[in-house]
Amino acid sequence: MITTKELAAELAGRILTDPAELVRYSTDASRAAPQGLPLAVLTARSTEDVAAGVRWAGRNNIPVSVRGAGTGLAGGAVAYAEGLVISLAEMDTILSIDPGNRLAEVQAGVITADIDAAAAEFGLMYAPDPASYRQSTIGGNIATNAGGLRCVKYGVTTDSVAGLEVVLADGEIIRTGSTTRKNVVGYDLTSLFVGSEGTLGIVTAATVRLVPRPAGKAVTFRATFPSASSAGRAVTAIMNSSVVPEVLELMDRASVEIVEKFHPTGLSTDGAAILVGQFISVSSEEDAAVAAWLCREAGATDVEQAEGDVLLEARRVSGKALDARGLRASCDVAVPIARLADMFEALEKISADEGVAIPTFAHAGDGNLHPSVVITDESAGAYAAAERILDLITDRALSLGGTLSGEHGVGSLKFGSLTKQLDPATRAAHQRIKHAFDPQGILTPGRGV
Amino acid sequence: MITTKELAAELAGRILTDPAELVRYSTDASRAAPQGLPLAVLTARSTEDVAAGVRWAGRNNIPVSVRGAGTGLAGGAVAYAEGLVISLAEMDTILSIDPGNRLAEVQAGVITADIDAAAAEFGLMYAPDPASYRQSTIGGNIATNAGGLRCVKYGVTTDSVAGLEVVLADGEIIRTGSTTRKNVVGYDLTSLFVGSEGTLGIVTAATVRLVPRPAGKAVTFRATFPSASSAGRAVTAIMNSSVVPEVLELMDRASVEIVEKFHPTGLSTDGAAILVGQFISVSSEEDAAVAAWLCREAGATDVEQAEGDVLLEARRVSGKALDARGLRASCDVAVPIARLADMFEALEKISADEGVAIPTFAHAGDGNLHPSVVITDESAGAYAAAERILDLITDRALSLGGTLSGEHGVGSLKFGSLTKQLDPATRAAHQRIKHAFDPQGILTPGRGV
Repeated sequence: MITTKELAAELAGRILTDPAELVRYSTDASRAAPQGLPLAVLTARSTEDVAAGVRWAGRNNIPVSVRGAGTGLAGGAVAYAEGLVISLAEMDTILSIDPGNRLAEVQAGVITADIDAAAAEFGLMYAPDPASYRQSTIGGNIATNAGGLRCVKYGVTTDSVAGLEVVLADGEIIRTGSTTRKNVVGYDLTSLFVGSEGTLGIVTAATVRLVPRPAGKAVTFRATFPSASSAGRAVTAIMNSSVVPEVLELMDRASVEIVEKFHPTGLSTDGAAILVGQFISVSSEEDAAVAAWLCREAGATDVEQAEGDVLLEARRVSGKALDARGLRASCDVAVPIARLADMFEALEKISADEGVAIPTFAHAGDGNLHPSVVITDESAGAYAAAERILDLITDRALSLGGTLSGEHGVGSLKFGSLTKQLDPATRAAHQRIKHAFDPQGILTPGRGV
Repeated sequence: MITTKELAAELAGRILTDPAELVRYSTDASRAAPQGLPLAVLTARSTEDVAAGVRWAGRNNIPVSVRGAGTGLAGGAVAYAEGLVISLAEMDTILSIDPGNRLAEVQAGVITADIDAAAAEFGLMYAPDPASYRQSTIGGNIATNAGGLRCVKYGVTTDSVAGLEVVLADGEIIRTGSTTRKNVVGYDLTSLFVGSEGTLGIVTAATVRLVPRPAGKAVTFRATFPSASSAGRAVTAIMNSSVVPEVLELMDRASVEIVEKFHPTGLSTDGAAILVGQFISVSSEEDAAVAAWLCREAGATDVEQAEGDVLLEARRVSGKALDARGLRASCDVAVPIARLADMFEALEKISADEGVAIPTFAHAGDGNLHPSVVITDESAGAYAAAERILDLITDRALSLGGTLSGEHGVGSLKFGSLTKQLDPATRAAHQRIKHAFDPQGILTPGRGV
């Protein structure tokens, strides 16, 4: 019988075992089913707390899941039955902002938007902005290599991480990366840990890169298309032009309808898809005009333009609007930018063949789509039917040279699909690394890789 | 007695064993001493040749070094006595240019400048441009995570690599990365292998990212400073402003004098340092004016401006000019961008204290400096004296939060200094990975990490 007494003695006040608390810390924001109650939750207040937690888990051979704000969409932070949950939410200190080197040093539990706000005081910005960024923690963003709207211009989370503090499975603490712009000493452990979904170590602090807040007038355009595939062609053309959008998002008719019922923004549902793009630069007006021209060339029936980001509102609420409709089974595929039109055609065909609506919004400029199936009937059969549709979508994305996850991570939800994307030799290379860092297999086992 | 007969029988490429050939393939462009003649050189013509080579080396427990054009500056490609050299120089095919996704697929032996030239036909550019890029191969650039002049704007080699084909130590072939802009499936093996200096596997092909060739008028400025540290302050100010230079390079008086004797460009040696920057954008003139203003604020006595890149000529030949002066012992430190002035002050002090000239040029915008000691006397004592000076420089860079290598790699030259930068736990994490991929220790042993 494993007892948490020993751990509780070492970490007074930081071990939760009340079942109500255990339930609260057991799930994430995905449809991944809870696996049973964990033995305990460690609400870490320091890197040493985390180290003590993994050492205890190792001695008792207990699986560990790591949790920030619980906003993950792939089941990566769901508790293991009889496992240990390590929560980093209370390690929420911004340790420093260094404007002269455009860096911020933060603990893993800091809310991502708080970093951006602190940077703003120096005219700087933390760029990656996943939809959850007002709730999610930087540690969770790092674990999943999160994306977001602004990533089309600034890159994803890994492009903004300069260094990490990581607790390994044996409790050792390592520091990766550098505060210099260039560094070729040692392996790129920073990039290895970013996106490793808690399977190699637990990120307890990070040094992140900041960029100047974009200067210039924000000019936003919205284009309406007769088909999602023509909108896809417009995106390919824009991304292959010389203009660099701040944001380039797509919504199809089904998602526009759902959004307008949830939170009317006056968006017309006449077209099959709308594309919303924003430019902020010294040449915003000209850049938006180039994009508008490319949209018309691709078949847009209507293009309107506005200052500021009022046109982006519908896109911003689309996730919540879908959630309000019932349980949402969504996926996170990405395709090469030149295959967007093909992917939208495939979605149309699957929707028609299967007789089911597949509302889709997309970080279009990154080729990253979130097609969803709304589940209104909570039976196992309804779930299975939705999963089957998502599998069809994923297979098609892979056949177009795409990936089964662009920004949410593999977690537990897509773990069974890994072999669709990674060949056996490449998968084995992943397992070499996993085994090297966690030979006992206690860190987020059976998920991620 | 180990024989290469067995190996020769299974290859498309050739096995060289003639001593004259062995000598030719035994060194790189650094001051690293040859370690003795290898048993053989395998000039690979295919990925399968490389796999056969490493399998043969594994069976015979022979160390393998990997070689592109031999332009490396850290001794990473120097042959092992009785070892196997695998040359990738004949694997020099550009497999595809995909302008719609801004990608190129290339074999490891392609000359880096050839990729850029092929991309130019589509209005695209392969950005990283190490000084050697007309001779060096993309495989070598990837192995060292090479930098270059344009990296201040576009990032270093790793930022331009989307995916790799790699032969592992056991002859397995894996493929990493994705042709999508976003992908979070699996560990970032691509970044792990970039910069791993042949210690984890042999990169045989790569998918690299292309960017639009910069549009707009090239405007170059050259500013003269009364001290290198004031030039450093100007660089910090420019890099913390909103302008983004295409190139931002620094030369101190000692290197200007050497260049002007080698290849007169009319550059004055009045100042203690000159800074050369270039802008290519829709606002080149305005951006250059901002930079010029920041230079004057930092103490520049003279700022001139010109179209095109005539002002860059002196910087482009500086490496060759130094080489022409005798053997060059140079280093490759980098410091955080806000510590540049401190680093230049430290160089001045070391030069004065030791009574030795330390001509320095720098990828200043990246905080990456190449201080050199010219060795005219080829005695062991002269070498040791130069190494001692470089150690002082490296120690100072590290104390400023810097790195001992910004772009050249660790190789054999800096292998003994690794523990100055990596603490024992972090170093041990590197060795876990090395052991996981190369348990026998045949791939570039005793170098890199």
